[in-house]
Amino acid sequence: MKNLVVGIDVGGTNTAYAIVDEVGNILGTDNFPTDKHPNFDDYLLELKEGINHLSYQVGFPHKIIGIGIGAPNGNYYTGCIDRAANLIWPKEILPMAEKLKILFGGIPSVLTNDANAAAIGEMIYGGARGMKNFVVVTLGTGLGSGIVVNGDVLYGHDGFAGEFGHTAYARDTRACGCGRKGCLETFVSATGIKRTAIILMGREIMPSSLRSIPFNKLTSKDIADAATNGDELALMAFEETGAILGNALTDLVAITAPEAIFLFGGLAKSGDLILNPAKKAFDKSMLFLWNDKVKLLLSDLDEKNSAILGASALAWKEINK
Amino acid sequence: MKNLVVGIDVGGTNTAYAIVDEVGNILGTDNFPTDKHPNFDDYLLELKEGINHLSYQVGFPHKIIGIGIGAPNGNYYTGCIDRAANLIWPKEILPMAEKLKILFGGIPSVLTNDANAAAIGEMIYGGARGMKNFVVVTLGTGLGSGIVVNGDVLYGHDGFAGEFGHTAYARDTRACGCGRKGCLETFVSATGIKRTAIILMGREIMPSSLRSIPFNKLTSKDIADAATNGDELALMAFEETGAILGNALTDLVAITAPEAIFLFGGLAKSGDLILNPAKKAFDKSMLFLWNDKVKLLLSDLDEKNSAILGASALAWKEINK
Repeated sequence: MKNLVVGIDVGGTNTAYAIVDEVGNILGTDNFPTDKHPNFDDYLLELKEGINHLSYQVGFPHKIIGIGIGAPNGNYYTGCIDRAANLIWPKEILPMAEKLKILFGGIPSVLTNDANAAAIGEMIYGGARGMKNFVVVTLGTGLGSGIVVNGDVLYGHDGFAGEFGHTAYARDTRACGCGRKGCLETFVSATGIKRTAIILMGREIMPSSLRSIPFNKLTSKDIADAATNGDELALMAFEETGAILGNALTDLVAITAPEAIFLFGGLAKSGDLILNPAKKAFDKSMLFLWNDKVKLLLSDLDEKNSAILGASALAWKEINK
Repeated sequence: MKNLVVGIDVGGTNTAYAIVDEVGNILGTDNFPTDKHPNFDDYLLELKEGINHLSYQVGFPHKIIGIGIGAPNGNYYTGCIDRAANLIWPKEILPMAEKLKILFGGIPSVLTNDANAAAIGEMIYGGARGMKNFVVVTLGTGLGSGIVVNGDVLYGHDGFAGEFGHTAYARDTRACGCGRKGCLETFVSATGIKRTAIILMGREIMPSSLRSIPFNKLTSKDIADAATNGDELALMAFEETGAILGNALTDLVAITAPEAIFLFGGLAKSGDLILNPAKKAFDKSMLFLWNDKVKLLLSDLDEKNSAILGASALAWKEINK
C-alpha cells in the first residue's frame, strides 16, 4: 500500500487539488471555482468529494496520509485562513486545516499561505533544491513572498511573516487594498502594472494599442502581448514595473541575505519583459556587500502545477519532520 | 576550576572587553581606543595582553574557554570583519576570530556584527528572554538590526543579513555612506537626526539654541538636551525621526513578524523623545494583521555593558550548542 498526500491550492479564482506521491508525481488533479459555494462548509464538502473521487481513480492500493493546503492569508501555526480579502467567505478566521482533518478521519492537515507553499515547492521540486536561504516572490493579483531561512519557512511569531508586498515602496502614493498607501504590490503585481499602464496613458503621448481598452477590461496579459508586439507604452510599463521590483528586492536582500530570489506567478510568466529591467535595477541598487552575489531567477516550477506541488510538499515536510 | 568566557565589543571609537561567567556576571572589564593601532595585529596583541591582565585579576581559579566578538560588518560564518567603513584598518577582510583563536591557544572564538551581538545579549540577559522571534534595532552612528527567528540570529546565506539600516526609506533623497541614497540610517541614527535638525534650521524659522552650533560640532546629545529644554526645533527633529523609525519598522514587521522590537543604543537613550513619535507612527502605519500585536520597547539591557554581554552570550551560545 503506497502512501500519498493531497495538495490543495486555494486560489482567488480556482481551487485546484491533487493526489501526489513523495517524489512529486501528480496521480490525479481537478479544480472548481473557489467562489462556487458562499458557505465555507459546502465548499469543504465539494473538496472532500472531489478528493475522494480522485482517490478512486488512482488505480493502485494507496493510503492518503496527509493534506497540505496553500491559501491566501493562510496561517501555518493555526491552520486557519485569516480574513482573506480576495475570498468570498465572511472576513473571519476559517479553520480550514482542522475541518479537513476531521472530514478525512484525523490525518495530519497543514496549511500555509500560497507564497510559502510556492517556496516549499521550489525547495523540494524546483530551482531551490539544496538551498537553505532563498526567497520566492509570487507576482499574481498581489505580491507575496515565501522566505526560507536555514531550510525552514520564516513564519515569525504569529505565522504571518513574508508580507513583502505590503512594505512601503513609496509612502503616501498609490492606495492599496489594505487601506494604506504606497505598498509594493500596488506597483508590482498584475494589478500594479495595469495601474502603471493607465497612469502612463495620462502621462505620455505616444500611441498605444492599450489606449482602446478600458481600465476595467485591461489585463496584465494585454500589456505583455502589446509589449511583445513592440508597443512603446506597454514596454515602458514593464520597464518601470521591473525597475521597482529590482529596487525593492535589494531591500529584501539587505534584511534576509538570500542565496537566490525566484520570481513566480502570472507576471513572472512575462519572462525577460519583467526580468531584464528588474535585474538591471537589482544590480544597480544593491548594497556593496551583495554585489554579484544574489541570483535573481524565474521559478523553475511548472506554473500550472506548482501551487498544488507546493501544498503537497508542505504535507510531506510535516509528515517527515 | 570555573569556566569563563571573554566578550569583546569592537566599537567605532572604543574597544571594550570583559571576562564573563555563564550567568552574565562581569568579573573584570577594560577598554582602549579602537584606532590606537593602525596595524591590526598590534591591536590584537594589546587586546590579548589586556585580557590576560584581567584574567590575572579575577581572583579565583578559572579557565577561559571561549571568546565572543561583536564588531562592525562582523561575519559569523567566516569570523571576519569585512571592509568596515568606520574602522581605521585597511578596508580588507580581517580574520579576527581566527587570529584571536590562535593567540589564545585554540579556544573557540566566534564573531558577529554588533547588532547581532546586541540581539543575543537581549535574548540571554535582557527583555527578550523567552522570546523566539524578535528584533533589536541599534541606533548609534548608523542603524543596525539583529533579527532573531526561531531562537537563532538570522544570518542569511552569507552571514550579512539584518542590514535594515540600508533599506531604502525614501529613494533618491539623502546621500548615504554606502554610496546610495535614501537609506533608513541617513534619517534614523545619531547622524540622521543631526542631518534632520540641520535641514529643519533651513526649512523652519523658529529660534533654536541649536542654531548657534555648527554642523561639525552638533551631536544627537545636543539635540536631545535642547528637546528636553523644550526647544521647538529639536522637538520637531525628534518627532520626524521617530515617525520615520515607526513607519520603517512596520515594513520590518511585515517581513519578519516579530513578537517585539527593542530599540537600543545612543539615540534610544533619548527615551520617550524618540519612542513616543515612533510608537504613534508604528501604530498608524501597521498592516492590519499586526494591529496591537507587536511590542515596541526600549532595550532592557544596561547600555554600558550590553555590547560585551552580547559578545559573551555569543561565546556561551557557541560553546553550549
